[in-house]
Amino acid sequence: MAASVNRQIQLAARPRGMPTHETFAMVEGPVPTPGDGEVLVRTLYLSVDPYMRGRMNEGRSYVPPFKLNQVLTGGVVGEVAASRDPAFSPGDLVTGHLGWQDYSLAPAGQLQPVDATLAPIETALGVLGMPGLTAYFGLLDIGRPRSGETVVVSGAAGAVGLVVGQIAKLQGCRVVGIAGTERKTRYLKETLGFDAAIDYKALGDIAEALAAACPEGVDVYFDNVGGAISDAVMALINTGARISICGQISLYNLETPDIGPRVQPLLLTRTALMQGFLVGQFAARYPEALAQLAQWLRDGSLRYEETVTEGLEHAPDAFLGLFTGENLGKALVHVGDPSPRA
Amino acid sequence: MAASVNRQIQLAARPRGMPTHETFAMVEGPVPTPGDGEVLVRTLYLSVDPYMRGRMNEGRSYVPPFKLNQVLTGGVVGEVAASRDPAFSPGDLVTGHLGWQDYSLAPAGQLQPVDATLAPIETALGVLGMPGLTAYFGLLDIGRPRSGETVVVSGAAGAVGLVVGQIAKLQGCRVVGIAGTERKTRYLKETLGFDAAIDYKALGDIAEALAAACPEGVDVYFDNVGGAISDAVMALINTGARISICGQISLYNLETPDIGPRVQPLLLTRTALMQGFLVGQFAARYPEALAQLAQWLRDGSLRYEETVTEGLEHAPDAFLGLFTGENLGKALVHVGDPSPRA
Repeated sequence: MAASVNRQIQLAARPRGMPTHETFAMVEGPVPTPGDGEVLVRTLYLSVDPYMRGRMNEGRSYVPPFKLNQVLTGGVVGEVAASRDPAFSPGDLVTGHLGWQDYSLAPAGQLQPVDATLAPIETALGVLGMPGLTAYFGLLDIGRPRSGETVVVSGAAGAVGLVVGQIAKLQGCRVVGIAGTERKTRYLKETLGFDAAIDYKALGDIAEALAAACPEGVDVYFDNVGGAISDAVMALINTGARISICGQISLYNLETPDIGPRVQPLLLTRTALMQGFLVGQFAARYPEALAQLAQWLRDGSLRYEETVTEGLEHAPDAFLGLFTGENLGKALVHVGDPSPRA
Repeated sequence: MAASVNRQIQLAARPRGMPTHETFAMVEGPVPTPGDGEVLVRTLYLSVDPYMRGRMNEGRSYVPPFKLNQVLTGGVVGEVAASRDPAFSPGDLVTGHLGWQDYSLAPAGQLQPVDATLAPIETALGVLGMPGLTAYFGLLDIGRPRSGETVVVSGAAGAVGLVVGQIAKLQGCRVVGIAGTERKTRYLKETLGFDAAIDYKALGDIAEALAAACPEGVDVYFDNVGGAISDAVMALINTGARISICGQISLYNLETPDIGPRVQPLLLTRTALMQGFLVGQFAARYPEALAQLAQWLRDGSLRYEETVTEGLEHAPDAFLGLFTGENLGKALVHVGDPSPRA
């Protein structure tokens, strides 16, 4: 641990609407020293996630808001730099919910080891981490797709959406992805074998393309985006459809209430289910899901993609990039590399 | 069977918006004669139900539309006038999905016997029929209320709502009813012991009264009405809430799309479930539910109310009355009485 300075990305101002660079501030401080039972972690990768936008607001949500002029927090993969707990030694690779900073202190109990032999270590923030688990449980437990059914996923080229669509294909479903660039829709169809992919930015109104892509209606909708895209999907749901509400990224920066066609009449006439969920509800079953995801990775039936931003100082750019729709796969910030092994 | 004329209420015109008397026509014809395996049923009571409004439209719904210039159909309790099936004899009391007319023909397999010793026969159309079953399964299977939770029911003084609220009280819940007159809210509180009842017509905006009535938020919402009333309830849902979508009567006569705050962000942040259902999904479990409802009736823990309109010729008035909010309990049309028993 050569450095003596700890850089932090702090929340400088609560954004109204779309965040900007003024939302963030980089602040330098001393590298902290672990107390009894604590571990000092040097950051290697930061996870950049849409849900963090909600934490930048004040007020009630499913996680407490970020505090002003305090370090932002999120998923981190790092290397143990110093440890005062017998569970971890310097050089160990770990993951946990830590700070957007060079060095984080954490109680040993809040860290999990990362198995570098399984897959590249940053996948602990993606396909083998929260996004992969979110896709797994949100699709299989709430969507409950059956072979031959039609599954639509919005935000299809994001970290969660890519996994959702691929698992749905593994279940024998017709899979239709909605994403925001031609590069993404081509990737979904040509590389991942989605049955159809719709570029909502090119089309504006996706209703016609969606109806053509779903000639037998929609049985499962995995919703990452909300808003008008979801209205169009809902209009096509079949009797007994399941709608898994994972994210609503189209709304996170809205300054006015989100108004649209009410879904209750559709849910009634189609006897359909709509369920919001958080991956944490399924924590007891993470080992089962991770074993299955790792197996699919190993046998080549599951691919992943990453959009990596270089340098802690550019973490705000990575976050702002979530909302411009350019990222393919998991958004990460690369902060450092593991130490050379002895 | 003295009469030789069969009066029918037919659909004379598809309504736009609110139905009127011009929606209906009364037409006379001959009393039909049963063929092999058929039963002729003399109508005693007609069930008058909000869902019938949907069948007056053309187009896709969960039941096929009524045909123009054909008899309307719905739940009927009647007496067998003639039978060419060994399962039924003249004088037997039966229920089934039959016509709004003096006499209906039906295959014997589509009729169920009515036990007149259990409760007044017309309860086979109410608390011991479709509305009671709808309340039972929609609340217990979808709402899954636990003792101490807060249950809100809209359309609380209707045939379904009255049963929902009383079952929720039997489960040990705090029960809040929303209804449309002071007479109804007083009945809910004083006669049925609801913890609170809100008169949405007197209040206009119910948000404040609802928040006061639900100091610990809303765990279960049984929705019979939809629209702005439901928006106000949704704003109060707790983490893990269950919303059972049974009806949307506020919308059935709308001529423009129903627009309001989208529920998906709430369902996400509260990890809540919203499920549309039809009672027919639970057909295999009707005997269990009817046994429980009859037991509650017998032991006095379940009450029912009826709004009875006299005479087949006034059935259209009874139907139009569903939308004016004056009915308490089950809306019925009384067409005839059982024959004197030998």
